[in-house]
Amino acid sequence: MASVLLAVFVNGKICKNPNMVSANDFFFPGLNKPGNTSNAQGSMVTIVNVNRFPGLNTLGISLARIDYAPYGLNPPHSHPRASEFLFCVEGTLFVGFVTSNPEDPNVKNKLFTKTLYPGDVFVFPQGLIHFQYNVGKTNAFAFAGLSSQYPGVITIANAVFGSDPPINLDVLTKAFQVDANVIKYLQAQFKHRLGNKNIHHEFVGLKDI
Amino acid sequence: MASVLLAVFVNGKICKNPNMVSANDFFFPGLNKPGNTSNAQGSMVTIVNVNRFPGLNTLGISLARIDYAPYGLNPPHSHPRASEFLFCVEGTLFVGFVTSNPEDPNVKNKLFTKTLYPGDVFVFPQGLIHFQYNVGKTNAFAFAGLSSQYPGVITIANAVFGSDPPINLDVLTKAFQVDANVIKYLQAQFKHRLGNKNIHHEFVGLKDI
Amino acid sequence: MASVLLAVFVNGKICKNPNMVSANDFFFPGLNKPGNTSNAQGSMVTIVNVNRFPGLNTLGISLARIDYAPYGLNPPHSHPRASEFLFCVEGTLFVGFVTSNPEDPNVKNKLFTKTLYPGDVFVFPQGLIHFQYNVGKTNAFAFAGLSSQYPGVITIANAVFGSDPPINLDVLTKAFQVDANVIKYLQAQFKHRLGNKNIHHEFVGLKDI
Amino acid sequence: MASVLLAVFVNGKICKNPNMVSANDFFFPGLNKPGNTSNAQGSMVTIVNVNRFPGLNTLGISLARIDYAPYGLNPPHSHPRASEFLFCVEGTLFVGFVTSNPEDPNVKNKLFTKTLYPGDVFVFPQGLIHFQYNVGKTNAFAFAGLSSQYPGVITIANAVFGSDPPINLDVLTKAFQVDANVIKYLQAQFKHRLGNKNIHHEFVGLKDI
Amino acid sequence: MASVLLAVFVNGKICKNPNMVSANDFFFPGLNKPGNTSNAQGSMVTIVNVNRFPGLNTLGISLARIDYAPYGLNPPHSHPRASEFLFCVEGTLFVGFVTSNPEDPNVKNKLFTKTLYPGDVFVFPQGLIHFQYNVGKTNAFAFAGLSSQYPGVITIANAVFGSDPPINLDVLTKAFQVDANVIKYLQAQFKHRLGNKNIHHEFVGLKDI
Amino acid sequence: MASVLLAVFVNGKICKNPNMVSANDFFFPGLNKPGNTSNAQGSMVTIVNVNRFPGLNTLGISLARIDYAPYGLNPPHSHPRASEFLFCVEGTLFVGFVTSNPEDPNVKNKLFTKTLYPGDVFVFPQGLIHFQYNVGKTNAFAFAGLSSQYPGVITIANAVFGSDPPINLDVLTKAFQVDANVIKYLQAQFKHRLGNKNIHHEFVGLKDI
Repeated sequence: MASVLLAVFVNGKICKNPNMVSANDFFFPGLNKPGNTSNAQGSMVTIVNVNRFPGLNTLGISLARIDYAPYGLNPPHSHPRASEFLFCVEGTLFVGFVTSNPEDPNVKNKLFTKTLYPGDVFVFPQGLIHFQYNVGKTNAFAFAGLSSQYPGVITIANAVFGSDPPINLDVLTKAFQVDANVIKYLQAQFKHRLGNKNIHHEFVGLKDI
Repeated sequence: MASVLLAVFVNGKICKNPNMVSANDFFFPGLNKPGNTSNAQGSMVTIVNVNRFPGLNTLGISLARIDYAPYGLNPPHSHPRASEFLFCVEGTLFVGFVTSNPEDPNVKNKLFTKTLYPGDVFVFPQGLIHFQYNVGKTNAFAFAGLSSQYPGVITIANAVFGSDPPINLDVLTKAFQVDANVIKYLQAQFKHRLGNKNIHHEFVGLKDI
Repeated sequence: MASVLLAVFVNGKICKNPNMVSANDFFFPGLNKPGNTSNAQGSMVTIVNVNRFPGLNTLGISLARIDYAPYGLNPPHSHPRASEFLFCVEGTLFVGFVTSNPEDPNVKNKLFTKTLYPGDVFVFPQGLIHFQYNVGKTNAFAFAGLSSQYPGVITIANAVFGSDPPINLDVLTKAFQVDANVIKYLQAQFKHRLGNKNIHHEFVGLKDI
Repeated sequence: MASVLLAVFVNGKICKNPNMVSANDFFFPGLNKPGNTSNAQGSMVTIVNVNRFPGLNTLGISLARIDYAPYGLNPPHSHPRASEFLFCVEGTLFVGFVTSNPEDPNVKNKLFTKTLYPGDVFVFPQGLIHFQYNVGKTNAFAFAGLSSQYPGVITIANAVFGSDPPINLDVLTKAFQVDANVIKYLQAQFKHRLGNKNIHHEFVGLKDI
Repeated sequence: MASVLLAVFVNGKICKNPNMVSANDFFFPGLNKPGNTSNAQGSMVTIVNVNRFPGLNTLGISLARIDYAPYGLNPPHSHPRASEFLFCVEGTLFVGFVTSNPEDPNVKNKLFTKTLYPGDVFVFPQGLIHFQYNVGKTNAFAFAGLSSQYPGVITIANAVFGSDPPINLDVLTKAFQVDANVIKYLQAQFKHRLGNKNIHHEFVGLKDI
Repeated sequence: MASVLLAVFVNGKICKNPNMVSANDFFFPGLNKPGNTSNAQGSMVTIVNVNRFPGLNTLGISLARIDYAPYGLNPPHSHPRASEFLFCVEGTLFVGFVTSNPEDPNVKNKLFTKTLYPGDVFVFPQGLIHFQYNVGKTNAFAFAGLSSQYPGVITIANAVFGSDPPINLDVLTKAFQVDANVIKYLQAQFKHRLGNKNIHHEFVGLKDI
């Protein structure tokens, strides 16, 4: 009968029988181990959402550990369903986000940035594009909280230039106001990367680290 | 005393005295006039949110009219606080969105696309990157509903390559895995455009059209 | 096993296996065809909610196309779970809504009305009684957005005088402060109509049009 | 400066300075006194919402006491922003509600009714039309809880036939499928009543009782 | 197949097939009977939540009847998911709640109290510790509404000194700043009580009364 | 004019003029410094909620740093408006929470506990009583995320035995089923402590540490 249940998808998650719940359902170990940052971006995000930690179901919160090699980058991305706070534990992180399109047509999208040192916190409002960049010479490590049990993540470069199938060349050429060859060149970087490893996704397992 | 009120910002909007409310507070005219698509993207979005139409306050909904010249594009963008339906009224629109980062690291971000003819509806889930492209030889026109009185809009190319100040070259070079000159070239397109007109923003007034 | 699933009703809808989702799940065609207004009210509402368009699940929005013959009426009704905007595409519509009971006992329920021409938008706040009436000599057509994936609709005359079984004569006589014969006469109109066609319901399929 | 504050309306209510709050802010007395049912409907609703009891602000709940003379009626009405439970304290109440328009066009709006005796509870889902009728020979009394601090109330007969200004004769004639004289007759009842007393409104003060 | 369904737990409750719904699904009888207050606390709470009354599903509200013997106590408790109003029907109740920890470290947790007579209402904000105490010489009876279909209840003394297994002696000794023997003495009271009857729980059936 | 604004309290917080916002509004420094644990409980909670960090307004999230001396305790408490995750950064923490009152009267409130080592995460569902106890011989440090911008905190022992004014002796004697002298003894501990320092409150400033 288990297979029946596996075929059912509901909003949120199916709850466990309350009589079978134990302390382990509210426990998630192992975030002390740094993620493997040996990749093109030099960073690793270990997201702990409701798919990996079912005890978060209905709790409206999730978390992540983010590791950065020297000059490692958590590239521009957004969370469609959550705001985020980022607590810098170790290292020096240059962080920022870009505001939504402005009301006044003569005003540009504003970039707000800050350099974080250990103990500093920054917040990224829901759905806005943000990034963190390790500007120090040592490894850095941050810890994030997100206001949803399943926040989602959209890495902008991957979504725009590395989707499957690719977004039409005409669309991207016009959107970025550049020659088609520039777009092809950009897309080529992501074709290559996808052949290897995608560094920023929601479910990097601990075994991967 | 009016200046006191102008200095107060609250979540949502300040409500009008209920005794002063009239039918005009629930009325917004003029969406029959096509937007001016004489710009680089060949499209014009006329968003009617709570800032332009105060009667939407607390109603959890807003709307937009979108016009497209032949081969006009509403470039890849996202709404941080709303899902959207798009109803194609006239013309032929190639539309699509890219899913959130996948759970399985070997799977790419999926692109879902469809060609819409008059009478067809497509939905874009909250926070995901989507676009519409007029693939016909005539003008096109669509009508959208959004699940928030203030959905926000983030035009990806403008936010990433045209913010003020610009996002650091190192960040973008690493994020897009390309040479710094490519990023500079991309940023230059948006510096140029901002000197003229930004086609996609939330508050293009009807007088502008 | 499919029959097991059909017997399960949950809040919202059961989600499709994410791996089986395709672009067609976010697509709904055919709203360019006018609804059949050959009925007593001279109007037809084609509602596209989550029951007809499963892709709206969790998106918090739905839509409708409304057609009106000359002097056709979308009779007084309310949506228990949604606010609505109405965009007049063609024709001349006299629209209105009645406010909630007033605080001051000497004040009556206020009626707010407006005549809409093509391009005009009007909003109806959640749960309030509203109507649209084609006051022009030609067909009219409007397009609506609603702030819920399943807004519901209560046509006042049908619910009050045409329910099954009927509301007690004593209740209606007292509520409307009239002779029982007047109520019987009113109820008779709806008995008749139900023998034919109910013009305003949530799931008029496109095949019906 | 107090007058400045009086001119500001925000979503919800302005909060009291936390340092000035006392137990009396959470206290509302006097619901033991029966409402005055000497009116055409033979009932009196004493609603305690956030406008009368500011301590309900942000609590998402409100309440009401309802008194019924023998054969007194709380006429068909709906609450646009709340579900309600009704607890029959004394007397015998015939209660009911009508469901939203059905999906199948051959099915009518269903009426669900029940006769309540002291100690019985019935629930009315959000936005649906419901009523209570004292079918006993003695006074009756019920107590209600509502799932909003400001639920609103729409008395159907008053809103449809007694609004100010009246809904157009053409609209009502067509909606109810009857002769204009019937509508005029119905409207006349409410013109008369409004000249006297409106029995069902949100803010009948205790002094009125 | 029924057993399959019984093994599925979802957020909220599984909905009944809409075609099988009847008036009885919205009906809950028997709250006119006083609860049995022959227990150590001299009170009985009869909570009517969605587990006992499935018709409350999605309605965001529940209710309770509370009976008090002379000097009976509904001991300090909190509802993790609901605010509550309490309407004193009979008797004299001394009620109170304690505020959340104050911002100013020199200020203590404030206790707000009031003596309620028949017809008086008091509100307890979500999650705060509150109690009611019958200070009269006769039985008392109150009626409560709660802003959730499943509010939960945490009786403080039982949760702190009567959990299974017990909270560690070191934790409680330090938390209450007392000798271990005092904690052991307190825990002993609840071991004893659990051997008999737990007076305050969510699902005391009517048959139990 | 500033004094006018200081007199206005609204749900949430008053928003800053968007044109005046800068990166510093989204920045909160100094959480690298351990809190001062030289107090009776041997712990210090530094909560960063919207009152201390206005940039959290509308974001639905807040955070805290918690420091523990050897055998230091964050005593049993609850958050009325938030769930919480706790990430153990350093040390060995014995943590637990007690479930809501059970449905079956023969079942007790369950205690779920776990010993956390660096890198382990535990979650405490909204409104439930929970604690953390440093069972190691060294200082410990944890980091928490909470699903509300203003979660509130209720330290159980302080609220029950240390409120101002005190909860009546009769109420507490009956609730805890013990002799009045035991309650007086318990209350005396908190009178003493309040004369000195309250270790667990929402707004311990960084200067205090």
